[in-house]
Amino acid sequence: MSPDVNRTGLFLVGVRGAIGTTVLHGIEAIRGGMPKIGLVTEIDGLKDCGWADVESFAVTGWDVCGNAHDSAENLVRTNVLPRDIVDMSGGVRDRLEMSIAPGIPEPEDEGGVDNKSADLLELPLTEVLAQLRDDICNWKSSERLRRGAVIYLASAERDRDMLPDGWYDSDADPLELLKTAPRDLSRSILYALAAICEGVPFINFTPAPGGDLPAIAGFARREGIPLLGNDGKTGETLLKTALAPMFRDRNLNVMAWEGYNMLGNKDGAALEDPQRAKAKLRNKDVVLPSILPNNPMMHSGVSINFVPSLHDWKTAMDYIHFEGFLGAQMSLQFTWHGSDSALAAPLILDLVRIALRAQDRNEGGPVHAAAAFFKSPLEMEEHDFHRQMTIFRDWANRD
Amino acid sequence: MSPDVNRTGLFLVGVRGAIGTTVLHGIEAIRGGMPKIGLVTEIDGLKDCGWADVESFAVTGWDVCGNAHDSAENLVRTNVLPRDIVDMSGGVRDRLEMSIAPGIPEPEDEGGVDNKSADLLELPLTEVLAQLRDDICNWKSSERLRRGAVIYLASAERDRDMLPDGWYDSDADPLELLKTAPRDLSRSILYALAAICEGVPFINFTPAPGGDLPAIAGFARREGIPLLGNDGKTGETLLKTALAPMFRDRNLNVMAWEGYNMLGNKDGAALEDPQRAKAKLRNKDVVLPSILPNNPMMHSGVSINFVPSLHDWKTAMDYIHFEGFLGAQMSLQFTWHGSDSALAAPLILDLVRIALRAQDRNEGGPVHAAAAFFKSPLEMEEHDFHRQMTIFRDWANRD
Amino acid sequence: MSPDVNRTGLFLVGVRGAIGTTVLHGIEAIRGGMPKIGLVTEIDGLKDCGWADVESFAVTGWDVCGNAHDSAENLVRTNVLPRDIVDMSGGVRDRLEMSIAPGIPEPEDEGGVDNKSADLLELPLTEVLAQLRDDICNWKSSERLRRGAVIYLASAERDRDMLPDGWYDSDADPLELLKTAPRDLSRSILYALAAICEGVPFINFTPAPGGDLPAIAGFARREGIPLLGNDGKTGETLLKTALAPMFRDRNLNVMAWEGYNMLGNKDGAALEDPQRAKAKLRNKDVVLPSILPNNPMMHSGVSINFVPSLHDWKTAMDYIHFEGFLGAQMSLQFTWHGSDSALAAPLILDLVRIALRAQDRNEGGPVHAAAAFFKSPLEMEEHDFHRQMTIFRDWANRD
Amino acid sequence: MSPDVNRTGLFLVGVRGAIGTTVLHGIEAIRGGMPKIGLVTEIDGLKDCGWADVESFAVTGWDVCGNAHDSAENLVRTNVLPRDIVDMSGGVRDRLEMSIAPGIPEPEDEGGVDNKSADLLELPLTEVLAQLRDDICNWKSSERLRRGAVIYLASAERDRDMLPDGWYDSDADPLELLKTAPRDLSRSILYALAAICEGVPFINFTPAPGGDLPAIAGFARREGIPLLGNDGKTGETLLKTALAPMFRDRNLNVMAWEGYNMLGNKDGAALEDPQRAKAKLRNKDVVLPSILPNNPMMHSGVSINFVPSLHDWKTAMDYIHFEGFLGAQMSLQFTWHGSDSALAAPLILDLVRIALRAQDRNEGGPVHAAAAFFKSPLEMEEHDFHRQMTIFRDWANRD
Repeated sequence: MSPDVNRTGLFLVGVRGAIGTTVLHGIEAIRGGMPKIGLVTEIDGLKDCGWADVESFAVTGWDVCGNAHDSAENLVRTNVLPRDIVDMSGGVRDRLEMSIAPGIPEPEDEGGVDNKSADLLELPLTEVLAQLRDDICNWKSSERLRRGAVIYLASAERDRDMLPDGWYDSDADPLELLKTAPRDLSRSILYALAAICEGVPFINFTPAPGGDLPAIAGFARREGIPLLGNDGKTGETLLKTALAPMFRDRNLNVMAWEGYNMLGNKDGAALEDPQRAKAKLRNKDVVLPSILPNNPMMHSGVSINFVPSLHDWKTAMDYIHFEGFLGAQMSLQFTWHGSDSALAAPLILDLVRIALRAQDRNEGGPVHAAAAFFKSPLEMEEHDFHRQMTIFRDWANRD
Repeated sequence: MSPDVNRTGLFLVGVRGAIGTTVLHGIEAIRGGMPKIGLVTEIDGLKDCGWADVESFAVTGWDVCGNAHDSAENLVRTNVLPRDIVDMSGGVRDRLEMSIAPGIPEPEDEGGVDNKSADLLELPLTEVLAQLRDDICNWKSSERLRRGAVIYLASAERDRDMLPDGWYDSDADPLELLKTAPRDLSRSILYALAAICEGVPFINFTPAPGGDLPAIAGFARREGIPLLGNDGKTGETLLKTALAPMFRDRNLNVMAWEGYNMLGNKDGAALEDPQRAKAKLRNKDVVLPSILPNNPMMHSGVSINFVPSLHDWKTAMDYIHFEGFLGAQMSLQFTWHGSDSALAAPLILDLVRIALRAQDRNEGGPVHAAAAFFKSPLEMEEHDFHRQMTIFRDWANRD
Repeated sequence: MSPDVNRTGLFLVGVRGAIGTTVLHGIEAIRGGMPKIGLVTEIDGLKDCGWADVESFAVTGWDVCGNAHDSAENLVRTNVLPRDIVDMSGGVRDRLEMSIAPGIPEPEDEGGVDNKSADLLELPLTEVLAQLRDDICNWKSSERLRRGAVIYLASAERDRDMLPDGWYDSDADPLELLKTAPRDLSRSILYALAAICEGVPFINFTPAPGGDLPAIAGFARREGIPLLGNDGKTGETLLKTALAPMFRDRNLNVMAWEGYNMLGNKDGAALEDPQRAKAKLRNKDVVLPSILPNNPMMHSGVSINFVPSLHDWKTAMDYIHFEGFLGAQMSLQFTWHGSDSALAAPLILDLVRIALRAQDRNEGGPVHAAAAFFKSPLEMEEHDFHRQMTIFRDWANRD
Repeated sequence: MSPDVNRTGLFLVGVRGAIGTTVLHGIEAIRGGMPKIGLVTEIDGLKDCGWADVESFAVTGWDVCGNAHDSAENLVRTNVLPRDIVDMSGGVRDRLEMSIAPGIPEPEDEGGVDNKSADLLELPLTEVLAQLRDDICNWKSSERLRRGAVIYLASAERDRDMLPDGWYDSDADPLELLKTAPRDLSRSILYALAAICEGVPFINFTPAPGGDLPAIAGFARREGIPLLGNDGKTGETLLKTALAPMFRDRNLNVMAWEGYNMLGNKDGAALEDPQRAKAKLRNKDVVLPSILPNNPMMHSGVSINFVPSLHDWKTAMDYIHFEGFLGAQMSLQFTWHGSDSALAAPLILDLVRIALRAQDRNEGGPVHAAAAFFKSPLEMEEHDFHRQMTIFRDWANRD
């Protein structure tokens, strides 16, 4: 069958995870008429920019374990997904389950990985890439998709050593580099390459490197494929980048900004491993120095604790100690309590829309205009959320 | 003696109050080399715009009671002013005391008003105005001031009835209107008129109407005198206007924003009177609807409690209940703890600089570019702090 | 049919309200094996005191409007009642609906009152009492109940004038007084009298006066009927009475304790009316002075705001400003976020158990040992929660 | 000269530290008539128990570095000590400086240790003990002290390996064990031994082992010398032990209690070293499981961060996630902001009073009645603050 003019495939890496499950049900809910709360592309001044219809999105993807029905039930139990939407979407989940392809496990994912996924660990990386490309091709054809996007939602991975030099050269050919790449190459790179090779944008919502390496960025630029990332900005970091400009603009001297994050979902469990938490904490920690004036005395701490009872409800408590006129000692503290998945899922829909628009405009490589969505925006120094939004508005409203 | 080329007079209404006292000592501290923390005009991108030197500012003004030395001691005791700066500024306070002119009391200021101030209540309003103009003239000459600004810092006054129609006509002559004005006319109007007549800008840091009335604004425009106001934005409202844009831009549905303010100083005591709190609460309450999309279901509450033990340390606790994707219920809460005077005083110095610059550019009437400094900016609908700062940066960097 | 040896009737005033609905479903859930979280009588040191079985409780009562099914659905939607318990209890609600008797409306309950309830407003008070007694008799016989208790859960009522002197005389006969009582007599008094006359304990979980008047207390004492009340201690006040002893015992000088309560349910809406909020605020405000040493300078404020989006989730933010050694200024602040109904319902089950035990022991009149459960315990000065619990443990473990 | 009947020596280990400095000035302030805020022995029901006069306390002690004048100035700058008390106590500090003896450094205290203290590191432990005993003798005689107490206030020390078996035997002679003790023996043991040998009580306000070892406790018991400790309970742990009983008594299921501590003083700096933080965190973490019913699923985390700008003002933010009736998810969070030294210093005065009373009653060995003052009370399982206070009240009021 020929592709449907309007259908776009969302190829999610970690499609059975909490965010993936929320994306899937969110699209169904929107089809059923629920308001598009949480979508940036739906606010005044942006909603009339001619984005792709959310109703035309079809979700599939890769995963290494789990079951879509269980994931949905978990999110009902923890008050993230409404019972009625989950009840009415059983058929959609059945169909999803049939289309899911095996994902690439992390070496440390001992046990809990299904057999087909485990098999991928045995293949040479070039063959893994070929398999991922095949998956995309098959989905496009079986689901009659005209276009698509790969969205990377896998758990935080452990911090790795530097790669061979070639990967930091924007003129290098990553397909060549892959042949001699280390066996434990970040999976995000393989998914990014599969996306570029298959001509679909790559969106990295995690702290993994995919899309950030010069060799990948250069390749995407040459191929005209948009890259969006890294690491979705949904909670504490969002608040930091929205609030720090106020301290900067009022010339208040931030002496300490301590952030304590509590999280109880799978991502939280992964971040118990200090090696996995490293990249995420680095991304969270870099935003303040970039917004606030250079102050070598500023103390800034970020920690993430796994608190199982919170499940998907990430809770951040921040304490900001600052100095005002004549040395007066002041403080601001805040507590943010929100569902990780409900905060992230609508941004995934936004990012697909943005990626498609960028592709229509032939903007290959990192899309700077999407900086407002990420903790560590690709090739961008601007972390001030409000300035990022100004950049995005201008881009979205450009002819 | 001829005026000193560099000296600018700050004519503070309520000069012995906590903010006035902090302004006075702040200028001394800056003279002594303390960093200019808290001055907006000193941040990167603004500090090189050629503002007037703070060191050239000379403080005097009106008050109805009190003693500058006691005010300073109070602010040391409550950890607002450093002991050493107060100790070294005794001579400056002595000199200030000699120059202070009697202020216009409010009719409800029973007792606690010095005799000379009380006498002003007996005079016709036109004679009161003449007296205020004389005060400005005398200061200019005795202090050898080339320029000046009247800064209105009096306690919140009770809400008044509408004035006769003429006051809402920008072509009317307020000096004519004054002849038949009600006896309890807001004092802020008299001080504004005195400033305009004497050719110095008028800065209204309180919720009083002065400067906001079309007849005053029109008069100032015709005379080429800048008006800045109303109601300094220093704490909870600052945070609201810095944070609400984040909710708007992320399309999160704010269902309730409840703000609880505690304050223990003279201003807090005045606000115990519901009639006096009215205008302030109105200013605080208007900012959210102006930033967030029209949501008739949004509940927003603001209260101010007088908590004597806090003295100058105003503490605000806000609870924001919002809805995300698929109806997920989330919350943000914050506690802001800061010194009212230490937050306000540096802004007074900024506003004088801005007023002088506006006067140099012949910008008579309300100065829209100063909106970021006020809860209820004159003739301005924009309450988003970040957009206000963009407007201010553009204005300040204009040739 | 003869009464069932084990069955106890819970006659709830306001049985279709949020607390009543949670009590009803809670008993079903406990029957189904759910753990008895939240029941004080189930903790170590108390659980083996031979209380009545919760499984033997049968719920019915009075109400002036509403529908039990709607109430249950509302509590599912707001994450108070689990969906499965509500789904499995449809038959129980059907049966409840058939047994509910019309309640006595408040004169200000314009509209929204069903016809049969409205009719009660037309009757002389003595006839209303007779009707309530009939209701109890009928339930006992139709439901085969051996014993029972009336539990007053109606919305906060507006503060009333003093009653005629007789009501404050513990030797007076309230049934005589009723004949000439004012038409707008608090409904709580009528329900209390009906309970005493029918030989069942009366539990007052609201700020209404029922049970608190000497004439009622004396009557109950003479009749050997236990009275428990007033005003359930479930949230902010519980915390106050648990925390204030720490400040007292560490000799820290509490200068201000400001409490801000937000509530979105029917009770919250009723408390929007300052006349209705009065008694509740008084109860909340009295506990601190009773625990902390006499400090005329202490400022203590309590407010309750109706924030509709919170529904049943009452949220309290308290700020405590205290002074330590050598005048050091310190603070504690807390935010309590809990479901009003889920906090109250298990205490209702506890109180019925306690009431039955007291009746078995022939303890007529106010039961002092239940003080830990109430904001304004009957005839008790002790508000320290920990001391109240010691009293309760001793009482419960007495032979 | 013969000892003064009324004079008691406070021999502080770390006498120039923040707590020591606050104790010193606090006694002077009380002599000058300041109220005894923060002293537990001054509350109703305890103040008439015939405690020693604070005015009769004379402070001296050991330290390895620093200067009493600088310490006092630091505490003025950070708003802990009032300027006037520090100004009037210059002579007292001069006299203190002359009496201070060299302290025993920790091996890791590289640099920053004065020469005389460094010399102690070269001596055999038995000679160090002899030196400490001499110090006590000399102070007693030169200051004409009738009695005294050694109070251990040194910085948290790193966690050490188990000691040889003998130390865990209450019948062993610690003076014998000392001869073959490891060179890096906790200094707290040496100070405890010196106190016991010289017949003065030993109070351990830190997480160090001194007083906790069976060999020391047995020796003290045989000698009739009171031991009080360990680890003063002044902030977050105090709150935990005051609040957890409420959750226990209301049968609310605490699923997570996460505590985040920020501290900026010398103690905070020492705790940056994970080896030093270990014992303190262990003490803080043990209290919850001891109060709350056994719940293997409860997650409880405690961390301490060094935030230099806070100086002495320790700030704790705790998040408590709990489950109520039918699984309702609720939370309590609090922020405690207090001066470490101002919280601790009055307790030191209390503990000296208690130690003297215990000695008068010939209560040698661990004083269980002082449990309410410590995170890890010697030989006591009871952590419920309110029960600890009941024990203390009973003990204090015993004849």
